[in-house]
Amino acid sequence: MENKIIERFSKLNKAEKINWLVREYGDSSKEMEKILTQYWNQEEDLQKLHEEFSENTISNFYMPFGIAPNFLINGEIYAIPMVIEESSVVAAAAKSAKFWLDKGGFKTSIVGVSKSGHVHFIFKGDKDKLNSWFSEYLRDELFAKTGDITKNMRSRGGGILTIELVDKTSELENYYQIQATFDTRDSMGANFINSCLEQFAQVLKTEIQRNELFSREEKDSLQVIMSILSNYTPECLVCAEVSCKIEDLRDESGISPEEFAWKFRQAVQIAEIEPYRATTHNKGIMNGVDSVVVATGNDFRAVEACVHTYASRTGKYKSLTHCEIENGIFRFWINLPLALGVVGGLTKLHPLVMVALQILKNPSAEKLMQIVAVAGLAQNFAALRSLITTGIQKGHMKMHLLNILNQLEATEEEKQYFINFFKDKTVSHHLVISEFHKLRNK
Amino acid sequence: MENKIIERFSKLNKAEKINWLVREYGDSSKEMEKILTQYWNQEEDLQKLHEEFSENTISNFYMPFGIAPNFLINGEIYAIPMVIEESSVVAAAAKSAKFWLDKGGFKTSIVGVSKSGHVHFIFKGDKDKLNSWFSEYLRDELFAKTGDITKNMRSRGGGILTIELVDKTSELENYYQIQATFDTRDSMGANFINSCLEQFAQVLKTEIQRNELFSREEKDSLQVIMSILSNYTPECLVCAEVSCKIEDLRDESGISPEEFAWKFRQAVQIAEIEPYRATTHNKGIMNGVDSVVVATGNDFRAVEACVHTYASRTGKYKSLTHCEIENGIFRFWINLPLALGVVGGLTKLHPLVMVALQILKNPSAEKLMQIVAVAGLAQNFAALRSLITTGIQKGHMKMHLLNILNQLEATEEEKQYFINFFKDKTVSHHLVISEFHKLRNK
Repeated sequence: MENKIIERFSKLNKAEKINWLVREYGDSSKEMEKILTQYWNQEEDLQKLHEEFSENTISNFYMPFGIAPNFLINGEIYAIPMVIEESSVVAAAAKSAKFWLDKGGFKTSIVGVSKSGHVHFIFKGDKDKLNSWFSEYLRDELFAKTGDITKNMRSRGGGILTIELVDKTSELENYYQIQATFDTRDSMGANFINSCLEQFAQVLKTEIQRNELFSREEKDSLQVIMSILSNYTPECLVCAEVSCKIEDLRDESGISPEEFAWKFRQAVQIAEIEPYRATTHNKGIMNGVDSVVVATGNDFRAVEACVHTYASRTGKYKSLTHCEIENGIFRFWINLPLALGVVGGLTKLHPLVMVALQILKNPSAEKLMQIVAVAGLAQNFAALRSLITTGIQKGHMKMHLLNILNQLEATEEEKQYFINFFKDKTVSHHLVISEFHKLRNK
Repeated sequence: MENKIIERFSKLNKAEKINWLVREYGDSSKEMEKILTQYWNQEEDLQKLHEEFSENTISNFYMPFGIAPNFLINGEIYAIPMVIEESSVVAAAAKSAKFWLDKGGFKTSIVGVSKSGHVHFIFKGDKDKLNSWFSEYLRDELFAKTGDITKNMRSRGGGILTIELVDKTSELENYYQIQATFDTRDSMGANFINSCLEQFAQVLKTEIQRNELFSREEKDSLQVIMSILSNYTPECLVCAEVSCKIEDLRDESGISPEEFAWKFRQAVQIAEIEPYRATTHNKGIMNGVDSVVVATGNDFRAVEACVHTYASRTGKYKSLTHCEIENGIFRFWINLPLALGVVGGLTKLHPLVMVALQILKNPSAEKLMQIVAVAGLAQNFAALRSLITTGIQKGHMKMHLLNILNQLEATEEEKQYFINFFKDKTVSHHLVISEFHKLRNK
């Protein structure tokens, strides 16, 4: 089948878009249309709202919105909303929360909140002249000429913190940056930072033309390549930790507390030296982190990019969590760079995001950073705990069992049979299928 | 308000869970309950299916399911389903698709498909003995004793490719790995790989006890720390590219094709040397990648972790895309490690995932890797194109305008007014609000 291109697809209404898709890519049945439409919300306004978050929207993709209760964070109890399609993540978070509940819970602190962005530009001319012009004149102009943009943010206690000229010519010919740092308070701040930076670029281009220090060639050589925030925010950093006496590390698997502590620390150390392991170790952390990031209307791609760059900052990709055993005390912690917002973006628009924030007691951005870091640490604790005791497959496959049974269209009664059947066995896809056929052919 | 812990939350039914949440964290209004329930699907079975993907599920979080049409990939036309909450991503993908449509489109190829996993273990004993025992005896045993697990995969042309013993003792005392590589065909393969590895660990522990070469101390010193796949899959790699004559790089902003090519290449080079830029550059790529990963029921945390580790593999975090201008030809490409599945996991369970795969003409895992890489490359092309011409804010803020207006509960008429109002102006949150109040007070 040869598929055709379509002109002005975005101008079609939703029904027309679906009709075209079904014609081009569906089979002759009405199944594709039925599935796409069965996910629409009955309330037209609500449906429209969700469609306008993006473009060419034809349906709603459901992600489970769940709750992991009983997180004790700095002495307060939280129920954490998590949006995640992977089975066992919410259960694992809840299990970790419970484990640490009677051991003092999670302790968190904010290390810093500053974010940065750059005007990336090319300049072929006298370096010293540029430098002194920048520090004697341009920096002040950049602050002054973004006054309107930063006014509201300043009134909330944020704004532009620093503006520097960075010479990058040793790495790329004639390449310089205007590098600025920002405090964006309770907003993630992408729009604010980008608006400031684009204004910097305008001022840079205008002001260099007006200046008599620079020759015509120097003026004409200036080319702004781009002006854009950085999602890498190592200074917007939160720390979360748990600790307890080794003897309190009791696990239902029967492993001794001492062996638990030793194996756990080994597992963390392996993730500190072996990038193949560190990737998966950190992936597990991000199961927890992203669940809360998505539930609270934040951008998980931004958070992912930042966190993983941070994990590689020493030149080797490493674990984000660390573990120490000293004087009989087991300590496990994470340092996580997180640029999050609780205003702007989807936060006030997506009704479920508002519910998620309400469940979290309408936190500030700093508070949300702490909750998210806790979710990441808890997730990692749960994953390592499984890995060093029963193995990951036992728990994971049990969670997955229901999914396989749903695929087989098992009845409720059959599901109960299988939950019992696998009580003392490792679930395998193969075994479920063969046992299912046996059961049905009885 | 002091919140209380709750016992056996997971045993409550959905209504009870919500009641508890509303009591603990809601205000006195019925708003929280109303919002949580308004997202339930009318069809009970469908709703239940989605709840069982995860635990403690109380609602469905909507992500827009949209379509970017007109992708020409290796001579075939695709409409790409994307699930993303960020505005302008789908529009940008569609715009890139159109740009390359009459220039030969996207060309892709698979570099490799192998994935890996490890049994991480501690052994205090004779290294040489371990080595020779492994190569003369244990490796064959590991293959043999996973025969049942790998049978189906082998019949599909996949299975275990290699099993090696890796000495890591120079990095961590007494630390070794059994490292295996796998071909998991059309499945992502996490369960398959983990099942093999856990079996390896069992065989290792049993066989060393049975062997007379090792002393009692050596046998007792063996401790398996964990058995787990690696999400870092640099050998499961796809390449996607576009190219054209420089003179064909016509952009509506009026920039000359030569300047476009030069600035574009500079922008890519900056992302190759500056980690602060590379993070955001790659974040944009992942907007495209994750949209398709989510729509097709794959695990975006796994893909994110892998891709970013790959970006840092040289010891410096770098751009995933590259650009070259030679003999008047502009070439732009990406190498992307992607472990994806089109069977297993959510793929056959989530009805919208099945629709997404159908729209993509039911691709193999390899084909899906190619489509996803194209989505990433297209997204990066669109982002850089905006950045080096009009700036990112103009397009982005216009997309965002509707969101702000929705927040203000603007009427359709008012929305039209604002679309016209901002036709030749940069959208700022501040300006929308003040103009909105002016309009309403007229």
